[in-house]
This record gives sequence, structure tokens and C-alpha cells, in this order.
Amino acid sequence: MSAAARTDNAPAAASDALDKLIALVATDMEAVNATIVERMASDVPMIPALAGHLIQSGGKRLRPILTLAAAGLCNYAGRDHVRLATAVEFIHTATLLHDDVVDNSALRRGRKTAHMIWGNPASVLVGDFLYSRSFQLMVETGSVAILGVLANASAIIAEGEVMQLAAAKNLETTEDTYLKVIESKTAALFAAAAEVGAMAAGADAAKVKALADYGRAIGVAFQLVDDALDYAASADTIGKNAGDDFREGKITLPVILAFARGASDERAFWTRVIADDKQRPEDFDAAVDLIKLRDAIEDTLARAQSYALAAKDALQPFEDGPYKRALSALADFCVERAY
Amino acid sequence: MSAAARTDNAPAAASDALDKLIALVATDMEAVNATIVERMASDVPMIPALAGHLIQSGGKRLRPILTLAAAGLCNYAGRDHVRLATAVEFIHTATLLHDDVVDNSALRRGRKTAHMIWGNPASVLVGDFLYSRSFQLMVETGSVAILGVLANASAIIAEGEVMQLAAAKNLETTEDTYLKVIESKTAALFAAAAEVGAMAAGADAAKVKALADYGRAIGVAFQLVDDALDYAASADTIGKNAGDDFREGKITLPVILAFARGASDERAFWTRVIADDKQRPEDFDAAVDLIKLRDAIEDTLARAQSYALAAKDALQPFEDGPYKRALSALADFCVERAY
Repeated sequence: MSAAARTDNAPAAASDALDKLIALVATDMEAVNATIVERMASDVPMIPALAGHLIQSGGKRLRPILTLAAAGLCNYAGRDHVRLATAVEFIHTATLLHDDVVDNSALRRGRKTAHMIWGNPASVLVGDFLYSRSFQLMVETGSVAILGVLANASAIIAEGEVMQLAAAKNLETTEDTYLKVIESKTAALFAAAAEVGAMAAGADAAKVKALADYGRAIGVAFQLVDDALDYAASADTIGKNAGDDFREGKITLPVILAFARGASDERAFWTRVIADDKQRPEDFDAAVDLIKLRDAIEDTLARAQSYALAAKDALQPFEDGPYKRALSALADFCVERAY
Repeated sequence: MSAAARTDNAPAAASDALDKLIALVATDMEAVNATIVERMASDVPMIPALAGHLIQSGGKRLRPILTLAAAGLCNYAGRDHVRLATAVEFIHTATLLHDDVVDNSALRRGRKTAHMIWGNPASVLVGDFLYSRSFQLMVETGSVAILGVLANASAIIAEGEVMQLAAAKNLETTEDTYLKVIESKTAALFAAAAEVGAMAAGADAAKVKALADYGRAIGVAFQLVDDALDYAASADTIGKNAGDDFREGKITLPVILAFARGASDERAFWTRVIADDKQRPEDFDAAVDLIKLRDAIEDTLARAQSYALAAKDALQPFEDGPYKRALSALADFCVERAY
């Protein structure tokens, strides 16, 4: 663990910070959960069954929390933020359903993925359904501007996913391309989630932009840490199985750094296990060793740390208060959860 | 061919009618085609490559034609109908991309399907991209009401597709359930396509509803004829291979009627080839014979005919003129193309 990748807060304090943010939005979050259940309903029983499997599997719901907290930070007193937080969670759930089909993942957060239980066709179609539902919720807010932000984010997410697919198994992928992929597939929705919370509250343009910047930076930090944890964490810490990315041959920053910095025998190893997709059971441990040897985890986390700092800086236009403090602490949490 | 399923127009006249409609919207359609090319562009090369494969494969573009013609019927002089027609075509293309993955289809309109060339992951993700693009186009019109109509249609389409999936290979599917499926998966987008054309033109509520009703009825007729042609047509007529539905074990009205009316040996045949998915090469010809024996094609077309008449009746609020005449003739064309 490098000093550069550390923050001033201890891990316990960071986790505490997330709890504080969750407590601040707890009442709104209950309304979001009720709206989720209400809006995934359908006369076609397979839809709530499949959607519920994923939605109830216990993610942290960071994205809808961002929408609610952004609205709270901007002193919003209406109800549209609940609709928008639900819409954001539905977009996220739709992308997860499609991702699992794309990656052919067997497990998510330790549970069988929906497509393993109901099949690929159902996962594709229920994803489409949730995606449509999210736009219906946005329409109810009556704001074309908000619809524009989330439609743009959705297009960018899809572009990022295709970009990732095109870069699959290509060890020559640059850090720059990798950052574009995670800015698109992950950070665009974090940014939009925070931005629309501010827009619903009628915040001025500077504050709307500040929250979009905050969300984007948090999103990049979050994904960098996720990608680092895949080579470092136990299933308990990350909520998915370490080694998933490796077994799927995903090109993430730890691999990019280890490959770029590796000697010829290391590059031959990465070529065999990633590019040629010829893995043996003992390869994951060897991969973790090579990644450590090349400082690829600590440098990935150092980059995450700089995005977390940028996220905190983005909050500058806002006055001090419980929401600002909790969002600032959330930035620390995104990185600290790695330790 | 039953007398009931015939209209007063000869086939040549009906095809002529489609040409007249196409001629009426030709200038607008050129603008739509240019917008399609412009908006499927992306820095990620796989996106225009895959989207273009499907979009340029030469469908009749009935849905965007409906949007343009509805706007023309309502004397619209603006440009939003071009954006909306493009949005409608993108939604349709996205559903086709996802359908091909769901059905595992090898061919569409006689060409290899995108997922056979680029793989399922790319088809899923580019479908998502086009779907997002369609909402971006709607946002540009600035109308939340229009966004609501197309978001609702999209949710209904997805529900219809899941409903169809749940009914797959189930020979006990009723005609009522089948109609619900095609009203959702096909007619909802035809209805929305016509409706938003009228809305863009600022038509009054009665005319907006009339065009939605027209589109819905045309959509049901169109799908009924499509399902009939799968057991009756050459690849030239329908633009896809006859027997596709049969080989995929799809439950369509010709099968529902033939099974319901069949003697026990016929039911045993349908059970083996559809429910048990055990087909031999000679089974398609046998299926066509059984469907003829039970008058299932002509009765399917008779139902299509009644929807086509309803579509023409729906145009009652409009004054006579070239658009009304062409839309009325389009209703005939939807059925006449079967003969």
C-alpha cells in the first residue's frame, strides 16, 4: 500500500462516512425502494421476477444515493428526485442485465446472474423494459433538460461498452483508452445521477456543473478501485469474486500497467492468459504476483485517489453542511474501501 | 384464398398505393435517411458498421413513413417530424438487433443477421446505443408529451417481447394472448409512430387519437399478414425466408388455429415439432399442408382484413386529400401484399 494512495481518514472513518450519507437520505431512499417495486411491476410475471432478482441482490445503490444527496445539497423540497433516483437505478440495472449477457458472467455479488437462471433472451428484454421504464419516470418530472442529460448519459454508456468490447483481450490498449472506457461506461451515469439531482432542485448552472463534475470523478475513482480489487480483494470486501475480470480476460488498468512494465517472460504470460485466452487454474495467483511486482495495484489506487481529490474539490461552490461533508467523505470512501 | 380476406383493390393497385405514399413523403424521407446516417455515427467504429448493416438492408421503413405521413396529413410545416421518424426507426432497429439475439436468427431479409457477424454482445450493446440515440432525438423536439408516448411504446414493446418469450413453444396459447403479444411488440410502435407525427403537427386530441388508432390497427394487420406469409410465401414476397417462424418454434396465429382445430394426430405433429422442438427437414411442408387443411392462413388474413378496415375507418376525422387517400390505400396494401 503506497503512501500516495492513502487518505487522512482511516478505513473505519470512511465506512462511517458512507453510513452518514445513507442516514441523510434514508427517508427518500425508502421512497425510492417503494417506487422501484411499484415500477418494475408488470402483468408479465417474468419481468418483476427477473428485475427483482437483481435489484434485491443488495448493491450499495450509490447512484440513486448520489441523486438524492445532490438534491439535498441543493435544498430541494419536491419529489422529483425520488423519480429520478429510481430512473437512475433502473438504467444501472438494465446495463447490469445486458453486461452479464455480454460478459457471460455466472455470478454477480456472489449470486447466480439472471441470465444463468432465466436465460439470455429474458435478460436482454427485461433490461430493455427497465430502460423504457426509466424514461417513463423521467417524463413524469416534465423536464426535457433532465431527459436530455440522462439520454446523453445512456448513449455514452452504450458507446463505452462497445469500446470496451472492441478493446477486449487487446493488451496494447492504452491507459488513455481505458480511462475513456470507464469514463463512459461507469462515470457518465454517476455524473448524470448527481447532475439531475441538482437540476431537479433548480440549482444554478455552476452548481449543476459542480455536481456533474463531482459525480464523474467519483465514478472514475470507484471503477479504478473496483478494477484494482479484482486482483486484491476477498469476495467479502468487494461483493463479487476476486479474479472475475481476470477469468473474463478483461483489460483493466492493473493488467495494462503490469503488461506495459513487464519483462518479456511476463508479457508472454499476459499474452497467453488474456490475448490467447488459455488459462490454467494456477494462473490467477501468478497474475496477482506479477501485478504486485509491477506496483500495478498501488498505482491504480493512486490514480483513484487523485480522482477522489478532484471530486472533493468540485464541491467548492457549496456551503459547508451535513450533505457537503457526507459527499466529501464519500469520495474518501470510494478509495478507502480498497484497504 | 377466401373471398372475405380480399379487398376491392387488386394487388397491383395496392402496391401502387404504397408507391404513392412513398412519393408523398419522399423529400422528408431523404432527410430522415440523412439523419439516420448522421446519428448512428460514433467514434467507436463498430457502432456505425453494425447499425448500418441492419439499417441499409432495405426494409420498407413503414414506421418512419407513418410518422411523416401523419404529420403531412395534419399539414405540418416544421422539421420535428424528421427527427421523430428517425427516432422511431432507431427504436425499431434496436428491437430488431435484440430480437435476433433473442431468437438466435441467422438471416433477416435474406442477409446474415448482425449477431451472426459481430456476435451477440455487439448486437445487444449497439441496440442499446440506438435506443439512447432515439431518446436524444426526441429531446431535441422539446416535447415531453411526445417523449411520453414513445417511452410508453418502448415499455409496451419490451413487455410484449417478454410475453412472447413466456408463451414460447406453448401450443395452448390462446388467440387472445397472441393478439396481446402482437399489439404490444408490433402495433404499439406503429401507433406511436403515427401519433407523434400528429402531435408534432399540433393536431387536436381527436386527430391525434385517430392516427394512433390507425397506426395500431395497421400494425396488427401487418403482423398478422407477416405471420401468415411465413407459411405461405416465397422469400421474394416477404423479404425473409418462409418457414423462419416454424423453425424457431414460434407460436403464431396460423399455428394456434391449426392446433386448436386439428385432430389428435395433427396435434401430436404440432406437439412434436413446436412444443418438443423435434423437427425433421420434411416437417415444414407437412406443417403448411396442415395449416391449409384447417383454413388457418385464410382465417388469419381475414382477421388482418378486419384490422385494415378499422384502420381506414379511423381516418374519418380527416378531410379527403392525397395523404388520406394514400394512408387508406396503405391499409389495403398491408393485407394485399399477401396475395
